[in-house]
Amino acid sequence: MISKVKNAMSTLVGGMMPHGHHHHHNHHSGGGQTCGPDSLPPRFPYGRPDFLDLTPELLQYSTEHASRPVLALKRGSRLPWRTGYAEVINAGKSMLNEDQASCEKLFVRKPSGKHRNSTLLEDNGDGTGIPLHFWGVFDGHAGSGAAIMASKLLHRLIRDRLGEICHLLENPTSAPPICLAKNGSPYQAETKKGAAQEPEDPDAINDSSVRFHMEKAVSLESLVMGVIETAFKQMVRKLSYAISGGCCALAAIHLMGKLYVANAGDSRAIIIRNNEVIPMTNEFTPESERQRLQYLGFLRPELLGNEFTHIEFPRRIQHSELGKKMLYRDHTMTGWAYKTIIEDDLKFPLIYGEGKKARVMATIGVTRGLGDHDLKVYNSNIYIKPFLSCVPEVKVYNMDENKHGPDDVLVMGTDGLWDVTTDREVADAVSAYLSCCDPSDPMRYTLAAQDLLMRSRGVLKERGWRLPNDKLGSGDDITVFVVPLAGHESET
Amino acid sequence: MISKVKNAMSTLVGGMMPHGHHHHHNHHSGGGQTCGPDSLPPRFPYGRPDFLDLTPELLQYSTEHASRPVLALKRGSRLPWRTGYAEVINAGKSMLNEDQASCEKLFVRKPSGKHRNSTLLEDNGDGTGIPLHFWGVFDGHAGSGAAIMASKLLHRLIRDRLGEICHLLENPTSAPPICLAKNGSPYQAETKKGAAQEPEDPDAINDSSVRFHMEKAVSLESLVMGVIETAFKQMVRKLSYAISGGCCALAAIHLMGKLYVANAGDSRAIIIRNNEVIPMTNEFTPESERQRLQYLGFLRPELLGNEFTHIEFPRRIQHSELGKKMLYRDHTMTGWAYKTIIEDDLKFPLIYGEGKKARVMATIGVTRGLGDHDLKVYNSNIYIKPFLSCVPEVKVYNMDENKHGPDDVLVMGTDGLWDVTTDREVADAVSAYLSCCDPSDPMRYTLAAQDLLMRSRGVLKERGWRLPNDKLGSGDDITVFVVPLAGHESET
Repeated sequence: MISKVKNAMSTLVGGMMPHGHHHHHNHHSGGGQTCGPDSLPPRFPYGRPDFLDLTPELLQYSTEHASRPVLALKRGSRLPWRTGYAEVINAGKSMLNEDQASCEKLFVRKPSGKHRNSTLLEDNGDGTGIPLHFWGVFDGHAGSGAAIMASKLLHRLIRDRLGEICHLLENPTSAPPICLAKNGSPYQAETKKGAAQEPEDPDAINDSSVRFHMEKAVSLESLVMGVIETAFKQMVRKLSYAISGGCCALAAIHLMGKLYVANAGDSRAIIIRNNEVIPMTNEFTPESERQRLQYLGFLRPELLGNEFTHIEFPRRIQHSELGKKMLYRDHTMTGWAYKTIIEDDLKFPLIYGEGKKARVMATIGVTRGLGDHDLKVYNSNIYIKPFLSCVPEVKVYNMDENKHGPDDVLVMGTDGLWDVTTDREVADAVSAYLSCCDPSDPMRYTLAAQDLLMRSRGVLKERGWRLPNDKLGSGDDITVFVVPLAGHESET
Repeated sequence: MISKVKNAMSTLVGGMMPHGHHHHHNHHSGGGQTCGPDSLPPRFPYGRPDFLDLTPELLQYSTEHASRPVLALKRGSRLPWRTGYAEVINAGKSMLNEDQASCEKLFVRKPSGKHRNSTLLEDNGDGTGIPLHFWGVFDGHAGSGAAIMASKLLHRLIRDRLGEICHLLENPTSAPPICLAKNGSPYQAETKKGAAQEPEDPDAINDSSVRFHMEKAVSLESLVMGVIETAFKQMVRKLSYAISGGCCALAAIHLMGKLYVANAGDSRAIIIRNNEVIPMTNEFTPESERQRLQYLGFLRPELLGNEFTHIEFPRRIQHSELGKKMLYRDHTMTGWAYKTIIEDDLKFPLIYGEGKKARVMATIGVTRGLGDHDLKVYNSNIYIKPFLSCVPEVKVYNMDENKHGPDDVLVMGTDGLWDVTTDREVADAVSAYLSCCDPSDPMRYTLAAQDLLMRSRGVLKERGWRLPNDKLGSGDDITVFVVPLAGHESET
């Protein structure tokens, strides 16, 4: 991620913000504090990629442009589901990749006594349990620490939380019980009046002595969604006392015939099926979440620290404009109206700027993600965290209800990709590329991912990295997964 | 509207809510306080409909079922744009229609001195100004007072607010100025240093001595949206000291080639074009706005009055279940997870129930609308108004960018229609009906509206009003507009 967090706000103190946001690639955060570039072969000039825990020997890089190589899987290395992967580091301005990724096959099992705290264990040796596939892309800001930690931990948290409802997953046809017994152990329902109960009968868990007129049916699917949401919250707590900085998180989880896509931030995932685009995420930015943030500022003005106003204006207001009328909108409005400017309106707007330049409290350009506990407005004691959410939006795609050909894929990418290439262009590029590839070639999805990256990165010309239309390529880190939806059918 | 507001909550005091919500048509609110059934011809057994200010002589009613007639325009009466209209009162259980409607042609003009407070004047006699067409349906609860007042006032408020930006509407090609002069009069920009300025030049309004790096472009369209949002807020203030009860409000405004559809409540509008459905509204209910309401309850727990919890559970919790684990979701979650039940969870959930039975604080089934200032939880001092919003969602449909045939229409209806008939069924019924009608018949849209009503009302059988599939018809008031999108081309 580049310049999503500003760490220079020199003139806020004077009540005015700097207007110099118009250079896209000006600001850089410190660089990763946990992954050093030591002892790397010379062909990785930008630091060893930590993603996927792959060693440099398992990676290839495009030699075409030595100064900004595209890294991808080497022929012979292989990810679950023949997943294609590629990444590129930003245009030579930082040494380290703030994007991180993970791709794992895990197994969901009931928590056993000896593995109670199994999060940090790779406890899938014997291949028993319900298989779970996980893909994650993590776009870090203010360092890559949060992204690295999330890429190593989030999938295990999800697996462990799923383990707790494992007995429900094993019984997918019966609805989950509304209430579980006191000790939390689902098979140990409190027996009443000595009535004989099958301990393995999930219905017995309900207190059957009470009948309710209204009882909402809760699906197993929405329980898995709750697990994913809970795991994101838990991930944030684990980061809070370990890591500064933060990251956007986009995760895809395949479990029992369904694909759950969870997004917290501005990364994006689309499914391409028969060359049609099915969006699987919404982005969470100061613009898309304006009303939620303004509402919080309105209800809890103390969080604005007397420096910010929750009202949005189309530009900064001059002191000399007091008493005039200016366009505004508050947390209730989508349209704009005029209001008479009062003293309070001279404060800096909570949400300010447009598109990629939009910021919360003049500082951060995304409103959901993991980490950022210490993030403050520059030169102030105003915390930004209360305005940020760690909870992903989860969308579900039913894999089993659809037939997939070898060219039907899930594409996951950080914003560096989508800033430059539209959904439609990505779909056309992937479809065109794959249709020319041998369907049995295990490298085809990695090659398609690499092709996508090169399109967004562009080619080094005299005046920087340029796209074929001579527009500026993405200067950001880019990470892309291309996951074949028919891939699991070829898995054992 | 029926049973959207409960006024009997006999057992809340004891900490438990009544479970008797399962009868759909049990609860009725008081009846309209401002429109009496006096001096009516015998063929209007349920009180004179106030809608549209039409006299009984301009209306016809279907004699087919004397106990529940469908009222519609008589042949010869005519609304702007050949608009079709029909309504039916609920199934004989109340005497008055809580639904109200309005359909008006107005003209937007600059506010002149003598008409400063023109809201209550029908100041469109001479036909000058920018033409504005308005359709509104207002579904009242706890009486029809708010619905009647909104049907008589909302369109005038919108016209007056538009009048204030009339000079901008007359200049649609130039972007609205961000800032207006101190006295609010847009053509009286403050002159600087004696520089000659064209008083009718809108650019002169901007303080041209300042250049801004970031200035958001605001479209005229979003200014009109802001006008509509502001007018709804103003309508609520006018209701607050005049009327008890409330209403859902759905309004369509045609202005300068664009159709603005504004919705606050659970009415619905769809456009049918080439027999395709284009949804123009979202409904605002305890279920669709759950997270917004829970967030408010979470941030401002004092609004819950120690009686309610912002957390949602799939059913009421028994005291004996303390310490057990139950499914829940909070304001951040879409999925469900288990939590250990504590004392606080025994409070009644802020949002409770499913579908048409979902309620805020066990009282109201819609979360946006006009009025309801005095609405309290039964037998308590807990106000519900802070959880309700009066701000509509506004969607814009560009009429001029699309070509419309005589069978392309906007259908607006209260929830009584859509509870029984789906969007698709409505579209099919309207398309089938209109295709059999002479396109030049001015009655065709009213006949189509009447046909829609009869489909949702059903036919009186031994066991109540029944649909052809023998399911129960809508017992609610129903109001329907069928507005031909090519209609304005035939207008002078």
